[in-house]
Amino acid sequence: MEKLKNKIRIIGPNCIGTFVPNELDMLFLDRKKLKRPSEGSIGFITHSGAVGSALLDMASNEGVGISKFASIGNRIDVDEVDLLEYLGKDVETRCIVLYLESTERGSELINVAKKIKKPIIALKAGKTEKGGEAVVSHTGALAGSGNIYSTAFRQAGIIETNNIEDIFDCAKALSTQPVLKGKKIAILTNGGGLGIITTDLAIDNGLEIAELSKETSKALKKVLPSYASPNNPVDITGDADTARYEKAIEILMKDKEIDGVICITLFQTPTLEDDIIEVLKDSKMYGKPFIVCATGGEYTFERAKKLERFGVPVYSTPQRAVKAMRCLLDYGKVLKR
Amino acid sequence: MEKLKNKIRIIGPNCIGTFVPNELDMLFLDRKKLKRPSEGSIGFITHSGAVGSALLDMASNEGVGISKFASIGNRIDVDEVDLLEYLGKDVETRCIVLYLESTERGSELINVAKKIKKPIIALKAGKTEKGGEAVVSHTGALAGSGNIYSTAFRQAGIIETNNIEDIFDCAKALSTQPVLKGKKIAILTNGGGLGIITTDLAIDNGLEIAELSKETSKALKKVLPSYASPNNPVDITGDADTARYEKAIEILMKDKEIDGVICITLFQTPTLEDDIIEVLKDSKMYGKPFIVCATGGEYTFERAKKLERFGVPVYSTPQRAVKAMRCLLDYGKVLKR
Repeated sequence: MEKLKNKIRIIGPNCIGTFVPNELDMLFLDRKKLKRPSEGSIGFITHSGAVGSALLDMASNEGVGISKFASIGNRIDVDEVDLLEYLGKDVETRCIVLYLESTERGSELINVAKKIKKPIIALKAGKTEKGGEAVVSHTGALAGSGNIYSTAFRQAGIIETNNIEDIFDCAKALSTQPVLKGKKIAILTNGGGLGIITTDLAIDNGLEIAELSKETSKALKKVLPSYASPNNPVDITGDADTARYEKAIEILMKDKEIDGVICITLFQTPTLEDDIIEVLKDSKMYGKPFIVCATGGEYTFERAKKLERFGVPVYSTPQRAVKAMRCLLDYGKVLKR
Repeated sequence: MEKLKNKIRIIGPNCIGTFVPNELDMLFLDRKKLKRPSEGSIGFITHSGAVGSALLDMASNEGVGISKFASIGNRIDVDEVDLLEYLGKDVETRCIVLYLESTERGSELINVAKKIKKPIIALKAGKTEKGGEAVVSHTGALAGSGNIYSTAFRQAGIIETNNIEDIFDCAKALSTQPVLKGKKIAILTNGGGLGIITTDLAIDNGLEIAELSKETSKALKKVLPSYASPNNPVDITGDADTARYEKAIEILMKDKEIDGVICITLFQTPTLEDDIIEVLKDSKMYGKPFIVCATGGEYTFERAKKLERFGVPVYSTPQRAVKAMRCLLDYGKVLKR
C-alpha cells in the first residue's frame, strides 16, 4: 500500500490516477467529446484506457457516480491487486468494478477480494481463444484460460459479467440497495405487457415470482380498481396515479414473503404526475431491494435521472432491471459465506 | 384484407390504427411525455398499448423510424394475422416487429409469415407459467405453452427475442443491412479492450472471428502503424484518424473470406474528426453487413444518430452490436430455405 500513496495522483495513459470530478484533466481526452461522471460511490479499475474512458462517458450520461478511477494499462508498477486492496479500504467506495485482461497474481487477487466487505463486479476480457490472442497483442500479457478466471471469481465472491452494460447496471443496484435475501420478488406495473415480459425474464434469470398471500391480495383488492390485477405481477393499470402506486408499494414491501420489488413505472401515462418521484424514493424506508424499470424516451429519462440522485436505481428495460435484481441475490449469497 | 381498409385509421385504445408521424394524435397519450418516432421502415404490431407506446417513445429517442404502428389490444375484430398479412404487402415496411401475448390462429400465423419476404421479429410474452397466468389477467386470452410458440416461430422463419431492447436493435440492422451469408466476421476497433470484449461475445453468440489471409494482413500492415494489430480483431489503436479507418474498412470489406464487419468507433478520441461519419456511411458500397459499435455519452450519441440517418445501424455496447449481427445471420438462414 505504501507505493500507492505516492502514485495515486499521477495521471496519464498507462499510469494510475484517481479521478476527481472537475479537478483533474484525466488522460489526454477532450472534455467536449468525453464527459466526466459525477462524484459517487463506485470505484473503477481498468486494464484498458479505451474501455475505461468510454465507460466513464457512458456513466456521465446515465448519472452513475464514480468515487475513484484507475486506468493501469501495462501495469509497470501498481497492479489490479494493489488497487483492489486500496479501494477495499477507501471510505468513498461502496462497490468496486474491475475490467481485467489478465493477472499475474491470481491467488493474491482471490485472497484480497475475499477480505473485502464490498461488492466487486468483474469483466474478464479474452476468455475465448481468439479473445485471449487479442489480449496478447493488446498488452503483451497472457490471458489465461477463461474458465480458470470464472472459477477464481466464484471462489473470491466476485460477481462476473461479460457485458459492459451490466457493469454499471449491477454497480448501481449494489451501491444503493440492500441484498436480496431470498428469490421471491413482486412485480408492480402500470403496463400489463411489461409486467408479463418482466415475469418471464425474472424466472429465466433464476428469480421467483412470489405467490401472494390471501392477506396481501385482499389488501391490494381494497386499494385497486376492479379491473386491476391483485396477483403477482400486480398490474395497477395505465390509469394508476401516485396514490395508487404508494398504497401498492406499501402493501408489497411490508409483506414478509416478498424479498424485493421491481416497480415498472411508465412515467408517460397521463395520470402520473411528478409526485411519483417522491413516492418511489421513499421506498428506501422498507429496507428491501426496490428497483425501478422505466422504458421510454426523453421525458422518462429525465425522471429516471432525478430518481437516481435519491439512490433509487432505474433501468430502461425489464432485462436490465431483472439482471440488477439478480446481482443483489448473488451478492447476498456471497455475504452469507 | 377488406376489413382492414375500413379500419386502418381508427385510432384509440384497443383499436388498430396506422401511425402517421405528426399527423394523428395516437391513443390518448400526452405528446410532451411521449414522443413520436420519425417515419421509417419498421412496421410494428402490438398486443399491449403500454409496450407499444413505451417502445415508440424509446424508438423516438434512439432515432428508429416507424412505417406503421398498430396496437390491437383485445382484438375485437382485426388480429395479428390480418396485420401481418397487411404489413407483408406494405411497400413502406421493410421489417415487421410483433409483440404477441397469444394467438388463436397459430397455423394461419405460420402460413402468412412463411410467405412474407421481409424479416419478422417477435417477442412472445407469457412463455413461463407465471407469465402465462398474467396474460390471462391482461387480455383474457390463453397464453399457451411457450415452447409451442418458439417452435412455430422457427417453422415460420420468425426471429424470436425475449428482450425489448433486441427488438429495435435487430429491426435496425434487418431494415438497413444485407444478410450475413456466413459466420465469419471481422472486428475493427480503435479501442483494444472493446475489441476483445466484442470478440468474446461474438463467439459466445455463434459467430466466428475470421482468420485473416496473408494478403489481408499484409495490406493492413502497410496502412497501419507498427504498434497496431493486423490480426482480427484489428486494433487500429486510439490515435486512429479517419484515413486509417477508411483504409482498414476497405481492406476488410473487400476480403472475400469476411462476411461482415463490426466497426467499433470511439468517437471521443482526439484524432477522430467528424469526417469519420462520411467514411462509415460509405460502407454501404461494399454490399456486406456493416455494424457500428459506439460506446459513450452525449457526444457519441449525437454522432450515432447522424450515422443512423444514413442507414448505418449503431449500437451503444458490444453486446448489442453482436446480437444485431447475429440477427443478420439468422435471417440469412431463413432466406436460404
